[in-house]
Amino acid sequence: MVEPRVLKGFRDYLPDVEEPRQRMLAAVRQVFESFGFGPVQTPALEYADVLMGKYGDEGDKLLYRFLDNGERDVAMRYDLTVPLARLIGEHGGKLALPFKRYQMAPVWRAEKPGKGRFREFMQCDADIVGEPGNRADAEIMLVGLGVLRALGVPAFVMRVNDRRILDAALEHAHIDRAQLLPVLRVVDKLPKIGRDAVAAELTSEIQLTPEQSDRLLSLLAREVRSPEDLAQLALELAATSSGAAGVQGLSELLAMVDAAGLGANVAVDLSIARGLDYYTSTIYETFLVGHESYGSVMSGGRYDGLMGTFSKAQVPAVGISLGVDRLLAALIDLDLLKARAAGADVFLTYFSDDEYGATAKIAAELRQAGLRVELALSAQKLGKQIKLAERKGYRWVFIVGAAERERGEVIAKDLSNGSQTALRLADVGSWVSQFAS
Amino acid sequence: MVEPRVLKGFRDYLPDVEEPRQRMLAAVRQVFESFGFGPVQTPALEYADVLMGKYGDEGDKLLYRFLDNGERDVAMRYDLTVPLARLIGEHGGKLALPFKRYQMAPVWRAEKPGKGRFREFMQCDADIVGEPGNRADAEIMLVGLGVLRALGVPAFVMRVNDRRILDAALEHAHIDRAQLLPVLRVVDKLPKIGRDAVAAELTSEIQLTPEQSDRLLSLLAREVRSPEDLAQLALELAATSSGAAGVQGLSELLAMVDAAGLGANVAVDLSIARGLDYYTSTIYETFLVGHESYGSVMSGGRYDGLMGTFSKAQVPAVGISLGVDRLLAALIDLDLLKARAAGADVFLTYFSDDEYGATAKIAAELRQAGLRVELALSAQKLGKQIKLAERKGYRWVFIVGAAERERGEVIAKDLSNGSQTALRLADVGSWVSQFAS
Repeated sequence: MVEPRVLKGFRDYLPDVEEPRQRMLAAVRQVFESFGFGPVQTPALEYADVLMGKYGDEGDKLLYRFLDNGERDVAMRYDLTVPLARLIGEHGGKLALPFKRYQMAPVWRAEKPGKGRFREFMQCDADIVGEPGNRADAEIMLVGLGVLRALGVPAFVMRVNDRRILDAALEHAHIDRAQLLPVLRVVDKLPKIGRDAVAAELTSEIQLTPEQSDRLLSLLAREVRSPEDLAQLALELAATSSGAAGVQGLSELLAMVDAAGLGANVAVDLSIARGLDYYTSTIYETFLVGHESYGSVMSGGRYDGLMGTFSKAQVPAVGISLGVDRLLAALIDLDLLKARAAGADVFLTYFSDDEYGATAKIAAELRQAGLRVELALSAQKLGKQIKLAERKGYRWVFIVGAAERERGEVIAKDLSNGSQTALRLADVGSWVSQFAS
Repeated sequence: MVEPRVLKGFRDYLPDVEEPRQRMLAAVRQVFESFGFGPVQTPALEYADVLMGKYGDEGDKLLYRFLDNGERDVAMRYDLTVPLARLIGEHGGKLALPFKRYQMAPVWRAEKPGKGRFREFMQCDADIVGEPGNRADAEIMLVGLGVLRALGVPAFVMRVNDRRILDAALEHAHIDRAQLLPVLRVVDKLPKIGRDAVAAELTSEIQLTPEQSDRLLSLLAREVRSPEDLAQLALELAATSSGAAGVQGLSELLAMVDAAGLGANVAVDLSIARGLDYYTSTIYETFLVGHESYGSVMSGGRYDGLMGTFSKAQVPAVGISLGVDRLLAALIDLDLLKARAAGADVFLTYFSDDEYGATAKIAAELRQAGLRVELALSAQKLGKQIKLAERKGYRWVFIVGAAERERGEVIAKDLSNGSQTALRLADVGSWVSQFAS
């Protein structure tokens, strides 16, 4: 007998977790579609050469890569962005640009599994491909904020920055551009470990001079709360090659989101760096206010180079990615997403085998009225059926005898207090509203 | 530059296909949940020894199997039934039985790709685990029929048989039990190639004697339309070890489905064999009446042995599997599922960059009212925006100028005939009902 077990870093989702997770994803899907984003699905397996070299050496090593039965060098999906680039390269000519798509799908990375880190996890991305103007950036930010609003999150903030400001800040601090990525990785820790610790790490790990580190952080660790702060920043970066453009882009973006009525949910944060190499201007991360420990639940930015990997033309793109696992954990912890106690709304019983058919018919009527109904599978003694319903987490048991059937009623027994009420089948439609989720 | 391409037997789903597909799956999900089935998800990768030997030698060869970076022997999910058995073996103690679950997930098989045959395709299964009584079989049949009804299929029939009748028929025809599977595989072709061709194949390929073949087919090719036909069958199979039990099971099942009001959608068909070894009693396949060429869109049965592979206890189980691709193709061909022409219901335009913010606010209001709204990403000349909307498949363009904004209106332009009507924002809620899908 083989021992039943899952691979390390993988997991089963049983209904108590999977059901609310699916409900969350359905809500996200609805918001994406309400903005006109269309769903896309791509294969779990790609030719390895399609994925290799896109995630850095580190990423290449984490690919689930193997030779298939036909000796093809293949690898499992590592993210949703490179498959999108491949899809645009392959089908781009047929698509009306700008192309707005979302994709929800598992990805696989052979990372060291740990607390909250899995080898299989779901990604959920929305991107706009083919629009260079930053109104697309605003749209992506608005759809992301719309998702959090639809999920009922009471307070959240999207922290936004521009990659060109980071470039300019390095230039301003006389730091070699080759050091950009290592420097950004340290700067990224500002909100977590604070300015002093970051400064220490910049000098000890990256070998910046104290003066470089200071010049850099005097820019990136500052608070930017007003148009005046932005103007001041532009002034200081005026001598750099990209600083003014970055500040200008940020100003426009803030104005657009503000005009759309969501300015209160967006803040400039010059320490937001995103680890990834491919962002070219706008970048953002999103936090639940008062619950920042979940980390960023939604992040992304503009990446105008990547989409062109598979085509001759440059294809601008901007996108956002939801941290499905984090968001789910937060929604459950904050009691914004409740697991259903049972598989359905009510458990429907019957007294004898003879009554199964008639009761199954009633079950069908109740379902027609919008109720989820689990019909008992055997006509045990009523007490036993009720015990089973209890064990399965039900609050409501419906009891139908011949008399009730004749009157077009069911007896609704509330297991939370033992009370029983007669309920007309015709009234179930309104009674069911308490189960709206 | 790497050539953008997908592996043979794999495919991208672009929004025109993926959107209606997701709508179909959501409808299926809703029916499963209305019966109290809960969703489950299992990993795409399993230890190879969990999957090996469960699908026959043929199946083992079709596994996507490889050594992962940690030299573990792993394989990609081949179906949803063996992972369910593994899950029951692993978590069974924690679950309240009977356990009713559904799972929708892609599976991977390294088959020769061909017309309608892919290496990656979605399966969609509902199963009841832990209930030996055939009311569970009836429930699975009812949920399956409920799915087709919910999808609006006008005429369909579930053809049902009992594996024990097939065993008995072989016994009755003095055919060695070792020949069961090859014989069933030929009998399975009865509806396709007819009795004579099947008889010929049975004698030429399986080396049955003409008498054996005749005795077998005189039972399996007969029509069973009434309780009397079933009684007659029971009589003829009385001397066999399992025939009476099979007929009895079938009679009970028909009575239950009939009492539940769906008898007209179920028919006995003794030629239904299902290729698979693991069924132990009830088996069924489902066809669209008048469109049988799609093949069975939904099939399954009871398999009381398989679930026990990973545990000491025998665990009875019965389930059904939807042919997602076939069903989707049929629904689209029969015009029961329409692809949306565009990514949203309306395309919303604005006249100048200054008006973007105010228009984005209107977009938010319209979405709140239930409308899907694609907001233009740039304030090109109105004619250009309308052209883009047309190219993107939109029928409705909403135009908002300062005057409309002041009056709380939008101008709804119908691109199908060029007409324009003023629409009060407050009335959008009722106007939107035309887009209900």
